[in-house]
Amino acid sequence: MRNFSETTITGAVLQRLQATPDPRVRHISEALVRHLHAFVREIEPTQEEWSAAIGFLTRTGHLCTQTRQEFILLSDALGVSMLVDAINHRKPAGATETTVLGPFYVEGPREFADGADISGGMTGTPMLVRGMVAGTDGRPLRGAVLDVWHADEGGFYDVQHAPEARAGRGRLLTDAEGRFRFWSVRPSSYPIPHDGTVGAMLAAQGRHPYRPAHVHFIVTAAGFEPLVTHLFIAGDPYLDSDVVFGVKDSIIVDLVDHPPGTAPDGRVVPEAYVELSYDFRLAPAGPCPAPPGGPA
Amino acid sequence: MRNFSETTITGAVLQRLQATPDPRVRHISEALVRHLHAFVREIEPTQEEWSAAIGFLTRTGHLCTQTRQEFILLSDALGVSMLVDAINHRKPAGATETTVLGPFYVEGPREFADGADISGGMTGTPMLVRGMVAGTDGRPLRGAVLDVWHADEGGFYDVQHAPEARAGRGRLLTDAEGRFRFWSVRPSSYPIPHDGTVGAMLAAQGRHPYRPAHVHFIVTAAGFEPLVTHLFIAGDPYLDSDVVFGVKDSIIVDLVDHPPGTAPDGRVVPEAYVELSYDFRLAPAGPCPAPPGGPA
Ligand SMILES: [Cu+2]
Ligand SMILES: [Fe+3]
Ligand SMILES: [Fe+3]
Repeated sequence: MRNFSETTITGAVLQRLQATPDPRVRHISEALVRHLHAFVREIEPTQEEWSAAIGFLTRTGHLCTQTRQEFILLSDALGVSMLVDAINHRKPAGATETTVLGPFYVEGPREFADGADISGGMTGTPMLVRGMVAGTDGRPLRGAVLDVWHADEGGFYDVQHAPEARAGRGRLLTDAEGRFRFWSVRPSSYPIPHDGTVGAMLAAQGRHPYRPAHVHFIVTAAGFEPLVTHLFIAGDPYLDSDVVFGVKDSIIVDLVDHPPGTAPDGRVVPEAYVELSYDFRLAPAGPCPAPPGGPA
Repeated sequence: MRNFSETTITGAVLQRLQATPDPRVRHISEALVRHLHAFVREIEPTQEEWSAAIGFLTRTGHLCTQTRQEFILLSDALGVSMLVDAINHRKPAGATETTVLGPFYVEGPREFADGADISGGMTGTPMLVRGMVAGTDGRPLRGAVLDVWHADEGGFYDVQHAPEARAGRGRLLTDAEGRFRFWSVRPSSYPIPHDGTVGAMLAAQGRHPYRPAHVHFIVTAAGFEPLVTHLFIAGDPYLDSDVVFGVKDSIIVDLVDHPPGTAPDGRVVPEAYVELSYDFRLAPAGPCPAPPGGPA
């Protein structure tokens, strides 16, 4: 096989994939070639544009470190992460809705006791976070694991200040009644890192890089689907233009303002603080339901 | 805009792109989102597969250095480079056919005098390369620039042995009759670098990583389209299965075997050598002709 032209090259590549042993790898490879070639045929890039695309991907890769993931940002900013999230969460009604993981989760979080302060020295308005974890049937889940992380009042995550810094993140377990609570500080809305390739793309597309204020959660419990989500703070100006398309009404929560005094958990707080409360509902683990409108 | 679902997310992202100031950037962005989302909808990746894709792209970026370009390899191995090449070379009949640039071109080549040996210490069978450069009208082009690079008899480029090595590559100019000639060594067929992500992809697809033996050329002359091509050596076992889909009959050449003795350029060669000759034809510079079958 040789002499491939504009009209024969795609078929030739698909033909070459016929020996792919694993059917899933073959399907993904074929779909990738079809859509990638169709994209190229549609835009008809010049050699300089092709070269710019190679450079964009290369710089994107070089920006990725232990604490920065520019390809996740790219997936987020193109709406791909939310699409993958939606495809993977055709959940039974009643479960807490999901949203993107984002690029700032760090493996191996520090564990905290119930009621602990996880702010790790972050400055900002004290924030009490509390609630419970239950199944979609409402039964509380004891020992459910909550991984939590959020930005500070300046809109930065700990690892953006210093790669080894750990603040405003941690792991907690629910108690016998499925309850959790912890203290931290109120996070701010923030721009995703926009000094790199994704920032350049957003600028070229005339888009702002902001996300509304939120707290990230991964909630896991044996026998239930892991839940990756955020709680968004009501009233944020970016709720309707989140750069990563992640906002859902059901996971927007009102912060309650409290004057200085004794908090509901007994802690004496010498300054005004805010309270965020939410009850998570996990879907039972099991095979995915069929897509909406798809075959049963 | 919020509460995006599997059915609404693509439209939401396209809507967000409406403020893109540059129409070309907008077209490319929209096409990228449409094809990328269609790809994701077709394959319905699990979160683990999405995560594996992020990891694949990240490792691909980290493999890119001054002398290795894994994203170009990926584009080549998926047939994208040849498609872009075809789209950009809807040439008038008579011009030498093009093929991929490949990942081993190095900017700023050393210039050599006519008849020089550019092998730079590479071992292998001596090879005389000669020919001429003309326009499609047959008129010889004086002072045309030839950038040349090729692998050694082991199938490696200089920069694969050591990033700063320079051997088997250089720049030459045509003489008053449009002629060029130089000496080097006969290159071997070779596997593209397959210890990285592209090698892993090829293995998963059941494909070999080989390219048939060839010499790379970029030929440029004022008033003519730059020509990026190879000359392939006839008889190579990989001509019909080039991993990057780059072979065209018109750029396959027969090597002529010569016994030791005085070569056509007067050089006395104490061992058997081979001769590769080819006349390049450049298309006049100008606006691209319309696509085949497209509007005039
Ligand atoms: Cu497509
Ligand atoms: Fe975040
Ligand atoms: Fe090559």
